[in-house]
Amino acid sequence: MKLTMRLGRASYDIILSRGALGRLGKLANLTNRRALVVTDDGVPAQYADAVLAQCVQGGAKLVLKAGEETKSLAGFETILHKLLDEGFTRRDVVVAVGGGVVGDLAGFAAACYMRGVAFINCPTTTLSQVDSSIGGKTAVDFGGVKNIVGAFYQPEIVVIDPDTLDTLPQRHYVNGLAEAVKAGLIGDEYLFELFEEDDVHEHIEEVLCRALAVKKNVVEKDEREKGLRAALNFGHTIGHAIEAASGGALYHGECVALGMLPMIEDKLLLQRTKDVYKKLGLPTAASYDAAKVTAYLRHDKKASSQKGLTVVRVPELGSYRLDKATFEEIETLVRAGLG
Amino acid sequence: MKLTMRLGRASYDIILSRGALGRLGKLANLTNRRALVVTDDGVPAQYADAVLAQCVQGGAKLVLKAGEETKSLAGFETILHKLLDEGFTRRDVVVAVGGGVVGDLAGFAAACYMRGVAFINCPTTTLSQVDSSIGGKTAVDFGGVKNIVGAFYQPEIVVIDPDTLDTLPQRHYVNGLAEAVKAGLIGDEYLFELFEEDDVHEHIEEVLCRALAVKKNVVEKDEREKGLRAALNFGHTIGHAIEAASGGALYHGECVALGMLPMIEDKLLLQRTKDVYKKLGLPTAASYDAAKVTAYLRHDKKASSQKGLTVVRVPELGSYRLDKATFEEIETLVRAGLG
Repeated sequence: MKLTMRLGRASYDIILSRGALGRLGKLANLTNRRALVVTDDGVPAQYADAVLAQCVQGGAKLVLKAGEETKSLAGFETILHKLLDEGFTRRDVVVAVGGGVVGDLAGFAAACYMRGVAFINCPTTTLSQVDSSIGGKTAVDFGGVKNIVGAFYQPEIVVIDPDTLDTLPQRHYVNGLAEAVKAGLIGDEYLFELFEEDDVHEHIEEVLCRALAVKKNVVEKDEREKGLRAALNFGHTIGHAIEAASGGALYHGECVALGMLPMIEDKLLLQRTKDVYKKLGLPTAASYDAAKVTAYLRHDKKASSQKGLTVVRVPELGSYRLDKATFEEIETLVRAGLG
Repeated sequence: MKLTMRLGRASYDIILSRGALGRLGKLANLTNRRALVVTDDGVPAQYADAVLAQCVQGGAKLVLKAGEETKSLAGFETILHKLLDEGFTRRDVVVAVGGGVVGDLAGFAAACYMRGVAFINCPTTTLSQVDSSIGGKTAVDFGGVKNIVGAFYQPEIVVIDPDTLDTLPQRHYVNGLAEAVKAGLIGDEYLFELFEEDDVHEHIEEVLCRALAVKKNVVEKDEREKGLRAALNFGHTIGHAIEAASGGALYHGECVALGMLPMIEDKLLLQRTKDVYKKLGLPTAASYDAAKVTAYLRHDKKASSQKGLTVVRVPELGSYRLDKATFEEIETLVRAGLG
């Protein structure tokens, strides 16, 4: 399957196909340039090695330490040093093989090395395949704030091989599906119903493809996140606060799943969503300190003013609405819906 | 005088006017957003303070240490910390007040903070007014290589106040004029003749404006330096090597001036150029180790291949030609023309 992200000169293809990693040299041009393959030690080595084996002009591999701490200016510097030490030029390419951390970090380094070299993203986790690998948002965390330093930088191609999900631990696998449920809720009824009625794993290619299509449509209309793209933050405002308050106990997708619930306005749809979570193994409630969550909300550095935030609400399946909400309103929702 | 850099959605105005810094609040929008004013301790404090006084929503000032060493990832981090600590948002703006180091560094921080906030450039040196403030190239030095990490990021507006040149030491003042002589040589006969026949200081606004116009025309056709923009590197290939070999004894513009000489093919034009240098106070020869210069050339990290480089030659006044040259050919030119 192929989707084309239409962004003028920055347009690129998203290839979604079993075994695609083994055909990367054909899908992307690896014949007349060198490649730095960036991965981390949480990703089975076989994937990066398979890519490296296809670099006929030679290349190099950089294995980072797995985990969010790597997504820092120090990690950024590590990649830049490797590019410089190995003598990579403007005509060469950076290939990310891994999850969101690897993709965000390698993408940012590719954006800045020599003011931009080609970047190929090969996401290997559900979360990155369904969400972070497309959209062109690269970043590192800085000063305790997630994704506060980075660039909008589009990849040359995104190659998604669902076979890589076979080596992913079950909880990680399910974690990423939360973003696909989100895509269904805000923009694809059929996708949501697929979660309700079918075996997701059996239909994983269709799930990924439909979720990517929802994101693609939003990103094409708002490449640089000027407004509309906020729709993709559905569940994320409260989700990020839960993630911070949980101190790492909950995964990103699990927090987004929890963060979506208070923003679903239709009671029946709310129940249907909880049923989908139960079926998948996503949490429908979590015990944490609601005061702590709301404190994080108030300290969100992206807060557009000191009075409140823009939130995304889903009035009915397949639609959304951007809305301003005061902190008090959001806190009430958090307490009622999640406490 | 106003020039408009036409780059689609990234278009911006270049305002060139005596006293413009004192009118920045009117020229740019400083009424409904905060500003971080970045400067360095080599720039008279009055300029940054004049800008800060016009920030009616408040702002902050960051004074960096003057010098090329500041143009590093550490300097980049210093600006990012300040932006974060002061709670700057996506709707705020970074204003650079100073020379090329301040502009390149503040521009890169603006490009990356929250994946891009508005950037206003107020160059205060001849070199930055004539050259580095426009074109959207932001960068830091890294691993011993100049400008190797950065972004193409266009400012919202460039405000050039030639009055700031009054406080510039004479050698710095002349240093920047070398880039204007370059502009004349590759693209504006009239500008070159103005250097020959008139008092440059008296006509400084016209000199700046014509030099900017040459650069603007090239950048508009090649925003991301895919090819044509290489013309602006006239004198820079050898110039950078001389700069490195001189160990800081010579200024950038002086090295570019020296680097242009071997690439002027017309004998008469070469003599005219040397006469202009003498009139301005730019060097026409320098004693240094030619072997050292050529060694730096061979280690240029931007070398497109191991065999040679793309060089810019000027066959006659107001024109240029991109050419491939082997290292041996360049070395012969360096020895003959400069030794």
